[in-house]
Amino acid sequence: MQKLQINATTHIYPIYIQAGIRHSLSDYIAKDYDKILVITDENVATLYLADIRCSLHHEQVYTITLPPGEHVKQLQTFYDIHTKALQFGLTRQSLIIALGGGVIGDLAGFVAATYMRGIDYIQMPTTILAHDSSVGGKVAINHEYGKNLIGQFYSPQAVIYDMETLQTLPLKEVRSGYAELLKEALIAEPTLYNSILSIKINNIVVEQLKMHVRNGIMIKANLVEKDEKEANERKYLNFGHTLGHALETTLGYGTLAHGEAVAIGILFAMFVSEKKLSAQLPTKDMYRWLLDNDYPIHLQELSSTSLVKQMKLDKKVVSNHVQMVLLQAIGEPILQKMDEAELEGLLEQFFKKINNV
Amino acid sequence: MQKLQINATTHIYPIYIQAGIRHSLSDYIAKDYDKILVITDENVATLYLADIRCSLHHEQVYTITLPPGEHVKQLQTFYDIHTKALQFGLTRQSLIIALGGGVIGDLAGFVAATYMRGIDYIQMPTTILAHDSSVGGKVAINHEYGKNLIGQFYSPQAVIYDMETLQTLPLKEVRSGYAELLKEALIAEPTLYNSILSIKINNIVVEQLKMHVRNGIMIKANLVEKDEKEANERKYLNFGHTLGHALETTLGYGTLAHGEAVAIGILFAMFVSEKKLSAQLPTKDMYRWLLDNDYPIHLQELSSTSLVKQMKLDKKVVSNHVQMVLLQAIGEPILQKMDEAELEGLLEQFFKKINNV
Repeated sequence: MQKLQINATTHIYPIYIQAGIRHSLSDYIAKDYDKILVITDENVATLYLADIRCSLHHEQVYTITLPPGEHVKQLQTFYDIHTKALQFGLTRQSLIIALGGGVIGDLAGFVAATYMRGIDYIQMPTTILAHDSSVGGKVAINHEYGKNLIGQFYSPQAVIYDMETLQTLPLKEVRSGYAELLKEALIAEPTLYNSILSIKINNIVVEQLKMHVRNGIMIKANLVEKDEKEANERKYLNFGHTLGHALETTLGYGTLAHGEAVAIGILFAMFVSEKKLSAQLPTKDMYRWLLDNDYPIHLQELSSTSLVKQMKLDKKVVSNHVQMVLLQAIGEPILQKMDEAELEGLLEQFFKKINNV
Repeated sequence: MQKLQINATTHIYPIYIQAGIRHSLSDYIAKDYDKILVITDENVATLYLADIRCSLHHEQVYTITLPPGEHVKQLQTFYDIHTKALQFGLTRQSLIIALGGGVIGDLAGFVAATYMRGIDYIQMPTTILAHDSSVGGKVAINHEYGKNLIGQFYSPQAVIYDMETLQTLPLKEVRSGYAELLKEALIAEPTLYNSILSIKINNIVVEQLKMHVRNGIMIKANLVEKDEKEANERKYLNFGHTLGHALETTLGYGTLAHGEAVAIGILFAMFVSEKKLSAQLPTKDMYRWLLDNDYPIHLQELSSTSLVKQMKLDKKVVSNHVQMVLLQAIGEPILQKMDEAELEGLLEQFFKKINNV
């Protein structure tokens, strides 16, 4: 088994990565909790909830199963989970397990952060995408104005990652997850970038996937430890997300998978890096790889003005300027304040370019 | 001016206590914020908002004025404030000022704790009661099942307490505030207890009030520093609140002022301390003082069963047992697990006793 560790400001927590670890879950729960609440979605429940319940040797285990999709990551569901947790009698000595992708992790984590002013929770990611969101303690729900606008930094007690659960993912989810891996590779590790570009999404070898995910987590862990509250280096992980988040909100959550939106955002950030920093980047190769792997890159016509307006609601806005993460080279990210009009112009050029290539 | 200081786990923050300090607010705001949002209620706004706006020498100051009362401390208002803050363009470099009593402090503090995963806020309490809630970083909204069930521990950047604002309080509010002072006195300082019992609520000298509030804050600060997350000693501050909170929820928020409910809770906790610990306490004197000062002690008939059920939703419940704070003597609190049936019996005896005295 692989075990990594994160030094958060409040406590140190382990990340366990192992195929089949869901069958021996109780061995990895360090404390004696009075009750355990598993929060998951219908897709994951069908596949893995029975395994989880079997492996939790605990008298009082409760379950909340939500419909799949980003739309549950909102205020009313947040409140409804609190209500059920109160009905189940969860106390400050109880544990929440977030079993699922990023939506479940963010939502269940935010419930844990606020239930009776905060109780313990464990992240059990079941997607490739969630290798990223499950590490680092960012929890949130969406606001109608934008993603993750209501939330907290609240670290889990552990991340338990069963690589077997990745084998049942639909291709759209694999694509989505690989976009975040690409992001990590581009801001930190050329070798990982080259390795990812050498594979085909619909034909991944398990050992490769393991290696990519493990590397992705290590890059993330390193940045989170340096800057948990996202004052400096952690912002690099926002690479590709400035446009990515704006696209998701503008098109409606669920139209593009999160990673699909991020993939377009990454292309845009590379395009801007070339224009503004005269960086030499493999944007063309990257574009080809995305096309070859069926990423939806060609979008309907979108208003650059309204996309920039959406970007200005981003949490990284400073003194009324959108802050983008750009690349000087692969592995060399920088933060760049962007002028509104310039950003609009670049967006228009970008959309013209990718639609004409 | 009096300046105290709190060593929270995340940072150290000052508590300024001074008459008229609201007129020089900018001097006490340490950082350079891009925008400031003042959250207050209609009563406080009428009296003090103009002063506050004048003394904030800042270009971008926004205001949200809520109706007065506990009913705003709920989910929808919480979300609406987020919406307005986003419309005002607040960023992670912005500041929220909570100007008002405990309701405003708890609600605005919880918005600050969760806006874009947490921004700075300052507590400006305007009631005696809020001397307690403004210190220690407890922020929350109510759930329909009970008070403060959704929240966080999130410390302010400063507490700025203008004693002049206490002079406009209605008597009901003064009574309410003095119940929390009594609580602090009873768990920690016999001298303060005696001093409080020597005054009449409708005839307080300003110097006495200052002294009482300052002592109350020091008792609170001491316990918060020892145990910020309420694992041990901080629980003593819950003295009187087990029944207090249950009464508020059962009777409907606003029927009794918070401190009025706590006053009855204190009497009950003293009654239980006598019964269970054979403690020698001045319960009779206390009862007299409450009556003399027009605290509403004689309640309509209430079901002990449903009150105990309500108590079991308290955040301090451990292994399915209500935990009460009891007194061995004044200044000597202990935590006591209570059996459900026993608690019901004691409640019935208590209500019989105070209604027959």
